[in-house]
Amino acid sequence: MRFQKKYTVSESAIIGHNVRIGQNAIIHDHVEIGDNSIICENCIIGEPTFDSYYDENYENPKTIIGSESLIRSGTIIYADSIFGDCFKTGNLVSIREKSIFGQNCIVGSMSDIQGHVIFGDYCRLNSHVQISAKCTFGNFVFIYPFVIFTNDPIPPSNYLIGSKVGNFSQIAAGSVVLPGITIGKHSIVGANSLLNKNVGDFELYAGNPAVKVCKVNYIWDNENKQPHYPWPYNFERGLPWEGVNFDEWLKSEAGQKYAG
Amino acid sequence: MRFQKKYTVSESAIIGHNVRIGQNAIIHDHVEIGDNSIICENCIIGEPTFDSYYDENYENPKTIIGSESLIRSGTIIYADSIFGDCFKTGNLVSIREKSIFGQNCIVGSMSDIQGHVIFGDYCRLNSHVQISAKCTFGNFVFIYPFVIFTNDPIPPSNYLIGSKVGNFSQIAAGSVVLPGITIGKHSIVGANSLLNKNVGDFELYAGNPAVKVCKVNYIWDNENKQPHYPWPYNFERGLPWEGVNFDEWLKSEAGQKYAG
Amino acid sequence: MRFQKKYTVSESAIIGHNVRIGQNAIIHDHVEIGDNSIICENCIIGEPTFDSYYDENYENPKTIIGSESLIRSGTIIYADSIFGDCFKTGNLVSIREKSIFGQNCIVGSMSDIQGHVIFGDYCRLNSHVQISAKCTFGNFVFIYPFVIFTNDPIPPSNYLIGSKVGNFSQIAAGSVVLPGITIGKHSIVGANSLLNKNVGDFELYAGNPAVKVCKVNYIWDNENKQPHYPWPYNFERGLPWEGVNFDEWLKSEAGQKYAG
Repeated sequence: MRFQKKYTVSESAIIGHNVRIGQNAIIHDHVEIGDNSIICENCIIGEPTFDSYYDENYENPKTIIGSESLIRSGTIIYADSIFGDCFKTGNLVSIREKSIFGQNCIVGSMSDIQGHVIFGDYCRLNSHVQISAKCTFGNFVFIYPFVIFTNDPIPPSNYLIGSKVGNFSQIAAGSVVLPGITIGKHSIVGANSLLNKNVGDFELYAGNPAVKVCKVNYIWDNENKQPHYPWPYNFERGLPWEGVNFDEWLKSEAGQKYAG
Repeated sequence: MRFQKKYTVSESAIIGHNVRIGQNAIIHDHVEIGDNSIICENCIIGEPTFDSYYDENYENPKTIIGSESLIRSGTIIYADSIFGDCFKTGNLVSIREKSIFGQNCIVGSMSDIQGHVIFGDYCRLNSHVQISAKCTFGNFVFIYPFVIFTNDPIPPSNYLIGSKVGNFSQIAAGSVVLPGITIGKHSIVGANSLLNKNVGDFELYAGNPAVKVCKVNYIWDNENKQPHYPWPYNFERGLPWEGVNFDEWLKSEAGQKYAG
Repeated sequence: MRFQKKYTVSESAIIGHNVRIGQNAIIHDHVEIGDNSIICENCIIGEPTFDSYYDENYENPKTIIGSESLIRSGTIIYADSIFGDCFKTGNLVSIREKSIFGQNCIVGSMSDIQGHVIFGDYCRLNSHVQISAKCTFGNFVFIYPFVIFTNDPIPPSNYLIGSKVGNFSQIAAGSVVLPGITIGKHSIVGANSLLNKNVGDFELYAGNPAVKVCKVNYIWDNENKQPHYPWPYNFERGLPWEGVNFDEWLKSEAGQKYAG
């Protein structure tokens, strides 16, 4: 009984081929949704930004959602953001304006993206993640539940400084990243850490406050009796090197853009 | 003005006697709701699972909600789950497929149950709790706000290992439980802990990382000048031993199933 | 295309001049909304309290939302609460009954206000904040994401004790405040702290468990080469001393009520 056309779509929205839209969903002005995407029940796409409330001449900016996307129920996406193809959300997500996501990203349930952020391709955020404005993320960055990226070093202040995370890094559950931190590539922040210093490439930091524990290749996979990290050699589900060797994929045309 | 029949119910749903359904609520295919239950505004019950998006022959699995249940506004419950009688949720909860809850359980606002989990009877989850797949819980387990049960020891990996919590145990606010932990019965994990080791019966663990602090009967109730734990001797509101001695109730027919 | 009158308003609600109401929003009995306020899509205002489910003679208590307020999409506000003028929420907020907020307060996305709480004027809560019953807050208290104010010292118990926070204090991201704590004025709790002791005026506490670090005027603003705290001397955006000297404002008629 799903997708019964009990939703509302602005006349100025551009809806691709074979898009399905759930009940009570609202598609606001100047939203563009790519082919084969699914917008589930109760979602609000292209929610007008703050200016809309008080500016009579407000015109809703474009909101672009790539093809093959899946926006789960109750999610609210503000106008003026761009999402690459195959974007997925959990339920009840909030994404504010000027958020840019590459291809194949996932944002988990109840996560709160505060806008003015940039994510590369294949980033995966678990549930209840909060990303403050001005943070930037490379590709294949995975962020686990209840992680907070803050941006105000002396709150309240006017010096908002985002953090920056390199390709393939992993931020484990419950960690708080203080403002203006740089995390290198293939690194790990352990669960429930308070990260108040920069992390180099291939490093594990953990604790409150976090300290450098070791290089990531010291983390052992007890099952396979070998190091687990760098993880792309040992995990491929849903990733572009699935069924191929990671090193070979990196050298391929598709992989070269992520090699940095 | 509540319960005005401005909702949508699938023809294949089975709705019990005296069930009330709030405005904008959606009851999907093959949902069964027991007598006297209440589904509040904007709820989605029996949300079709991932396969539904791409499988043309998808048939929504059964979702069973016991009688006398109360599902508060904005909650999303996926198909293929079973909830015992007197199930209650807060607002804006998300519960994924293959979740099994016994009788008289409560899941607080904005909690995220990731599916493939088992809860016994009388479990109470406060707000913003996250339970990963493969976790199992006994009876009378109370979980306080912002607790995270993780399941991937070396993320990202394919070895998801749930944790297991025994009867009557309490997990205090803000704690992170690492994958594959066993917590015994009548135990306590203190607030904001990072639990990376197993907890025996009647033990208090706390800290980041958590360490064993003492046996739970060392925790003093300053008001009553006596130990507070095991707590069932000192707290009975809404619990089956209310008005009866806890030991006597345990020996009764009703209590024997929880004595283990 | 916004504000198309596809919402539901009780006949007993009192809606001020120039109020805009979003699609699918529900305004329950005895809600009063002040002039020029905005209720966005999918909001539920004046949600009937627990008694409504089982008491046939239930009459919904008043819910008062001040003028110039902005309630963002998906927010649920229970009946029997009072919000001063210029109240703002993020998306998907839940506020339970008997919550009192002064003027110009903000509650961020996915925050969970458990009711029976009092906030003064100009309090700002970021996203994913949880406030337990019986907590009270002065004026200009800012609370950052994922902060938890708990209220049960020996859970589960019947001794719920709220905490109390003085004017101008700041509680940083990810902190857990244990029950019955008193925090003075102009103080700071650092990120990811477990606060288990009282904090005096002008003090910084941080850590798990939190310890006194220093007086707040030792916290340096690297940009301006001066102490940042007490912060009202260095931050004024949206605050009543904007464009005026803070000390002068404190002495003015408007400021005197906050001088304590």
